[in-house]
Amino acid sequence: MKEHEHNGNGGPRLKRRPRPKSLERDLANRLRRAEGQLRGLGKMVGEGTYCIDVLQQISAVRRALDKIALILLRDHMETCVADAIAEHGSRAKIAELIGAIDRFLA
Amino acid sequence: MKEHEHNGNGGPRLKRRPRPKSLERDLANRLRRAEGQLRGLGKMVGEGTYCIDVLQQISAVRRALDKIALILLRDHMETCVADAIAEHGSRAKIAELIGAIDRFLA
Amino acid sequence: MKEHEHNGNGGPRLKRRPRPKSLERDLANRLRRAEGQLRGLGKMVGEGTYCIDVLQQISAVRRALDKIALILLRDHMETCVADAIAEHGSRAKIAELIGAIDRFLA
Amino acid sequence: MKEHEHNGNGGPRLKRRPRPKSLERDLANRLRRAEGQLRGLGKMVGEGTYCIDVLQQISAVRRALDKIALILLRDHMETCVADAIAEHGSRAKIAELIGAIDRFLA
Repeated sequence: MKEHEHNGNGGPRLKRRPRPKSLERDLANRLRRAEGQLRGLGKMVGEGTYCIDVLQQISAVRRALDKIALILLRDHMETCVADAIAEHGSRAKIAELIGAIDRFLA
Repeated sequence: MKEHEHNGNGGPRLKRRPRPKSLERDLANRLRRAEGQLRGLGKMVGEGTYCIDVLQQISAVRRALDKIALILLRDHMETCVADAIAEHGSRAKIAELIGAIDRFLA
Repeated sequence: MKEHEHNGNGGPRLKRRPRPKSLERDLANRLRRAEGQLRGLGKMVGEGTYCIDVLQQISAVRRALDKIALILLRDHMETCVADAIAEHGSRAKIAELIGAIDRFLA
Repeated sequence: MKEHEHNGNGGPRLKRRPRPKSLERDLANRLRRAEGQLRGLGKMVGEGTYCIDVLQQISAVRRALDKIALILLRDHMETCVADAIAEHGSRAKIAELIGAIDRFLA
């Protein structure tokens, strides 16, 4: 376990500074909306909707996920990365972040 | 309405050749799985999971959607585009498809 | 060697139907412009230009390459894929194309 | 002009902390290599190389540009963003960075 996150009992890694409630709510809403879009996609496929219209809807969900990722990235930089920089432990943190962005680009 | 799809009564555009049942089932399963992943993401955010781990999960859903889009694209080319080529009406069809791919790249 | 392309003497695979001259010229111009953008990027880096401005320029080159790829894809579908469909040899051709699009998404 | 970069005489924005020489050299080499790849692409198109092989080469250049962008992003975070955080001026800096990543995703 690196110093920037913690998991009291060997469980999943937790954020050291909890997300503000308003951010958590915003993310939860966006995820729920994306879930609804996926359900709509299932319906479109079941009803024989024209391929290009289905693809357009998939692009929309993908874009919604990118937006969620950007919101998380911003929060991550403003909290975890900022803390790491203040504590002079930022190199590993930044490398970790670049890895996450790389997975998105690739 | 273009000539390559139809909608009997002004409703949504439908695929002229219906998707094979096996394809429909595969797509439905994949969409349901992606929905489950989104629900899991909501839980992760609610539990304060570390940002990078949430981002990694978002990358996974995004990749799952890309796979679904590729399956649809392949079916679209094997049916709608192939029909259009056989009927010498392919230019508009291919332009439409390129537009859909462009929305994915961009 | 698959049936859809040829290479007289074991050299690189060639397009069976040559590209129209106007398309070739358009692609050559776009590639030359992208090369010029890359040279400009080298200069920006050498002069200590601010990171975000360099990144913006990289996004522009990437977008220019996507555009070139879309032009090639469209030509490929209108010629090679259309020929394969007319000759009932399209499954492998479409699979090959989906693979190429997948490399772009991923 | 924001506080995190400067341009002595109204010219282009410069990085406040210059890039290390080794980083500059690495970036210059990568950009030169990508330029060479583009020249190779021009030759492939002129010689009628098969579309899918050209597309594969475009994917390779695109990937090379992504790698260059990630190297720049990392340097940007380790210098400009870190400085901004130390000086409590990081919100605008992070917003600017998220905008740049957004342009890459989209």
